[in-house]
Amino acid sequence: MTGIDFSSYACGAWVAPSGDLRPVASALDGAALGQIGSGALDFAAMRDHARRRGAPALRAMGFHDRARRIKALALHLRDHREALYQLSYLTGATLADSKIDIDGGIGTLLVFASKGRREMPDGDVYVDGAVEQLSRNGTFVGQHICTPLDGVAVHINAFNFPVWGMLEKLGPCLLAGMPAILKPASSTAYLAQAAVRLMIDSGILPDGAVQLVMGGTGDLLGQLGGQDVISFTGSADTALHLRQAPNIAAEAVRFIAEQDSLNASVLGPDATPDTPEWDLFLREVVTEMTAKAGQKCTAIRRILVPDAQIDRLGADLSARLSALTIGDPRQGPDMGALASLGQRDDVRSKTATLMSEATLIHGDPDATSAGTDANGAYLSPVLLRCDDPDGAAEIHRTEAFGPVATLMPYTDIAHAARLTARAGGALVTSLVTHDPATARTFTLDAARHHGRVYLNDRTSMAESTGHGSPLPHMVHGGPGRAGGGEEMGGIRGVMHYMQRTAVQGSPDMLTAITAQFVPGSAQPEPPAHPFTRTFHELAIGDTLHTASRTITLDDIEHFAHFTGDTFYAHMDEEAAKANPFFPGRVAHGYLLLSFAAGLFVDPDPGPVLANTGLTGLAFQKPVSPGDSLAAALTVKRKTRRTDSYGEVRWHVALTNQSDEPVATYELHTMVAYDRP
Amino acid sequence: MTGIDFSSYACGAWVAPSGDLRPVASALDGAALGQIGSGALDFAAMRDHARRRGAPALRAMGFHDRARRIKALALHLRDHREALYQLSYLTGATLADSKIDIDGGIGTLLVFASKGRREMPDGDVYVDGAVEQLSRNGTFVGQHICTPLDGVAVHINAFNFPVWGMLEKLGPCLLAGMPAILKPASSTAYLAQAAVRLMIDSGILPDGAVQLVMGGTGDLLGQLGGQDVISFTGSADTALHLRQAPNIAAEAVRFIAEQDSLNASVLGPDATPDTPEWDLFLREVVTEMTAKAGQKCTAIRRILVPDAQIDRLGADLSARLSALTIGDPRQGPDMGALASLGQRDDVRSKTATLMSEATLIHGDPDATSAGTDANGAYLSPVLLRCDDPDGAAEIHRTEAFGPVATLMPYTDIAHAARLTARAGGALVTSLVTHDPATARTFTLDAARHHGRVYLNDRTSMAESTGHGSPLPHMVHGGPGRAGGGEEMGGIRGVMHYMQRTAVQGSPDMLTAITAQFVPGSAQPEPPAHPFTRTFHELAIGDTLHTASRTITLDDIEHFAHFTGDTFYAHMDEEAAKANPFFPGRVAHGYLLLSFAAGLFVDPDPGPVLANTGLTGLAFQKPVSPGDSLAAALTVKRKTRRTDSYGEVRWHVALTNQSDEPVATYELHTMVAYDRP
Repeated sequence: MTGIDFSSYACGAWVAPSGDLRPVASALDGAALGQIGSGALDFAAMRDHARRRGAPALRAMGFHDRARRIKALALHLRDHREALYQLSYLTGATLADSKIDIDGGIGTLLVFASKGRREMPDGDVYVDGAVEQLSRNGTFVGQHICTPLDGVAVHINAFNFPVWGMLEKLGPCLLAGMPAILKPASSTAYLAQAAVRLMIDSGILPDGAVQLVMGGTGDLLGQLGGQDVISFTGSADTALHLRQAPNIAAEAVRFIAEQDSLNASVLGPDATPDTPEWDLFLREVVTEMTAKAGQKCTAIRRILVPDAQIDRLGADLSARLSALTIGDPRQGPDMGALASLGQRDDVRSKTATLMSEATLIHGDPDATSAGTDANGAYLSPVLLRCDDPDGAAEIHRTEAFGPVATLMPYTDIAHAARLTARAGGALVTSLVTHDPATARTFTLDAARHHGRVYLNDRTSMAESTGHGSPLPHMVHGGPGRAGGGEEMGGIRGVMHYMQRTAVQGSPDMLTAITAQFVPGSAQPEPPAHPFTRTFHELAIGDTLHTASRTITLDDIEHFAHFTGDTFYAHMDEEAAKANPFFPGRVAHGYLLLSFAAGLFVDPDPGPVLANTGLTGLAFQKPVSPGDSLAAALTVKRKTRRTDSYGEVRWHVALTNQSDEPVATYELHTMVAYDRP
Repeated sequence: MTGIDFSSYACGAWVAPSGDLRPVASALDGAALGQIGSGALDFAAMRDHARRRGAPALRAMGFHDRARRIKALALHLRDHREALYQLSYLTGATLADSKIDIDGGIGTLLVFASKGRREMPDGDVYVDGAVEQLSRNGTFVGQHICTPLDGVAVHINAFNFPVWGMLEKLGPCLLAGMPAILKPASSTAYLAQAAVRLMIDSGILPDGAVQLVMGGTGDLLGQLGGQDVISFTGSADTALHLRQAPNIAAEAVRFIAEQDSLNASVLGPDATPDTPEWDLFLREVVTEMTAKAGQKCTAIRRILVPDAQIDRLGADLSARLSALTIGDPRQGPDMGALASLGQRDDVRSKTATLMSEATLIHGDPDATSAGTDANGAYLSPVLLRCDDPDGAAEIHRTEAFGPVATLMPYTDIAHAARLTARAGGALVTSLVTHDPATARTFTLDAARHHGRVYLNDRTSMAESTGHGSPLPHMVHGGPGRAGGGEEMGGIRGVMHYMQRTAVQGSPDMLTAITAQFVPGSAQPEPPAHPFTRTFHELAIGDTLHTASRTITLDDIEHFAHFTGDTFYAHMDEEAAKANPFFPGRVAHGYLLLSFAAGLFVDPDPGPVLANTGLTGLAFQKPVSPGDSLAAALTVKRKTRRTDSYGEVRWHVALTNQSDEPVATYELHTMVAYDRP
């Protein structure tokens, strides 16, 4: 088999396995695939290579350039995914499993690339939240910014999703502007290695952005400091051991952990056998027990059903499990093998522990699946049942990391929520119900114990993505025993690799730092009407001060009858006066916006192409007949969007004849790079 | 002296000092104030009291009710602050120092109360971020919610700000809905105790919301789990020791640390002696060296100035320090005493370490301030100078927690930023400059090493709040050796006490859980026009579907001439066609908004009082002459605001004759509780 390689990638070069070598075997038949070892690596040099070469090169790009490279990486991997599928079979994965891992990882990169372009600025400073007014006259204000850490992120990944698990960490890390050292789990490291080699060979990333450790991390973690990050996925025991390194606490090295999780899925009280939710629940449970042979950190381990339904549900579930085929994943079975014989031993041992509190109702943990290679890590699904979930302990804390789950009864939805919490913190819990009130009661109790709550019913089932699928848009991680970490969640996941800093100063200082107009800053007049200026000619702060226009009672009446908005506050002096907000008849808010546009728009074709929207409109003071209106239109933020135009957001301030603020808003336009 | 008490408050009762008692002395003359000890406390019972009584009672209130109680607490403390000032003198604090501590703490509570009302919902679920579209047809969507943890927060506070340090943690904790166990530092615990007693006696908080440990925390931390929080302020050594408790890592107990910090302040290259910034810098440095006798975690420890200015700056600074009076704080001196003789010994020892790399240019660390009580913890300001900051090590890591700072030269602003980072992570750095480009260069390099960057110049100096003042609006904390924690930062600080959970499901499920309309949910028609419904009658999801109106070319021309907005896209078919966004002449965006209002507004006086604003307007498809327009107006969110009315936010969707979306936005109104 070509493509199996155990070389590490350190300081820009591939390094053959060395040191205390350990064999790696195929999950399918135990055949030796090679040996893994990182003895020859100089971890201090790798750390410094990342810090000195990778970090500055990535930071110099800005968020959008990095987002474009992440997209290019994803497309390059997609072009070569067939080769990855072939390697993936050797890990025991079926083609469907491989698509979760490989296509799922590629899709995750694409979402981060897209969110990076849409939700982050085209620059080097991410602004977090609104300007804070810290002073009466506005000469001293505050804003939070996020900038990439000046260190290296060490990603310690689990064996079960060698590609997805790597890319879901790498995407946000690179987007933030931090280099990474990747450490895949040994048993499936050759698949991760193949993906890394594709990325390196593509030439898309700068030197030092990505390095790879095939084998142990030696003294690497002990050499990290306050600008470095560790993101760990694996067992609680390993996490506990790693966290205890003295520098991790002393230097406050960021440690993101995603570890054990006894996820529960709940059948709602309304989801009786005659409802679509019954079948849906069975499908979700079977999928989560058997996808990736149950080796998913989000798999369903605990199945909670109303007491009245437990016999029927157990029977239906056993029947579906019995119908599944298990075997060599290259033959297209429903379920493949575990990742290794060692993994299977571990699952059997944990299952024995669970059986101290539960009875077997389907499968045989000690049997070998019929027709499979005796040296392969095959194991058929095992369903247990525990009728005393309140009295049980092991059921709620022992994670058999394979196709094993325990069925339990509950009395009411509050009881079900309490039982989900018995895991002491988990990645996900799910509830299949068609009743929104049940969903609310359950979620408000269960949410604090989980990183994700997944709800499903007849409405969403055609499009739902599965109890066990972390999505790049949503946070993945859980409190307590699940490690307390968070990953992904869109831009939230990027923040793990950045420092949030409160910046305080005059508006001019904040405008310079954030590249975003802060009210109170200088507002120079541009040399020509801003609508005649190209995207690149417009500078942050450039301001058009319009002429003013008096608003007459005729204008208000005319606007009312033209638009149909004859609300009494505009039409009836006495009624308007009785309203707590108005001194008498006032102009329509939309009349003000419309007249303001009339004041600031330049009518002729020019670089400003279109008004695409508006946000943050606040009416500050009513405008009465006889008042006048003027606008100040200021360039607030610029973001390149396509090859020919970009978005310009404008700060608009409307004032009356006494220079009092009447309304402010942020106007969105598209502006061409060139004149038409 | 009345009011000095060392009782703890546990499980709803005051408990006298007991166990291994330790004496506490006045900072002014060493007089014994009493003995402190927590030997009689049952920490497991306290933990359970918080979890079982405090947590449910707080959670039942919702964010706004808790915010109101926080405000009431603040006002109650303000009414009794004179008694706290009197106790505060005994800690060595001047009246100005006490105002930072006591009034600063009260002000922090008030900001959290205000932000809680303005920025959080009037309910029990905080929604974090936008709805995520997870499916093509929108039947499966995602949203993040935050709910309070079901545990107890243990707040371990430092000796220097016994009131502010307690309240800046307690405000966000109570606002989130978590009970707290407060543990003040022994040497000034009597002042914290007096403030806690005021809060308890006020009856504002439910039983179990606040408990107090006067003395050591015994086995408390070892009994915490994944739903609990530890927020620690103190030395790095203590933090390291506490973090090593096995349950902290195994159960992922949240541990927020704010520890050592070698904060630097930089004089900008432009801030020469002839500029207002020179004097400003001197004032900031003197304040930060001497306020609270330098016992501030944010005090300036390192003073960085351009090489050319170091002699002059050193001389000017020494002159100002020489003019200060030091003595009994009750006599109104510029600077009072350190908190204890032990603290002074520590400062002297650390100063000796610093002097291995620096020379003394002002003060005498071994002298006693003239005219002060020989048993008081007085120490005059000490200014050191180090001419080789690049070669130095101790200067950047040894924190003499008193009126001690070291002056150092730098070559250019990038060098200054690098030197600030030598602290390995700090709470704050500051730069006094009038040049925005210098501020940007410095901030982009320095920000990632700091929780806060403070900029000051002639523009902001009259209103700036000081290098050393953490503000409730801005995050307080720093990376690396500063502990890696964050506190405050407005609602960000509240999140430390809540779990963020990704919720996925159908729009109806998310609407039920968040109490906020999610597009795609049911949109029932209310029994009457929504403008005739009171705040309480309107239900989330209630929707008015309007009639439709055709938009003619005459309408567009009329609107253009009436408003003055004759932009070519509305007026000139050929020019509009040449624009990449338009198929030909199109209606103005504001014409659509105005006509939509005409379609949905009910003209007569009714509960809907006023349109206060609008946000998130996105134009999705241009409207051509002959197209028609209809609106759907849906109740999205309700927030009580005053005794007589509340805010209703509406989801508005505009569609054309083919039911294609034309624009969406969120409309803000005020709606009365009663009919007029």
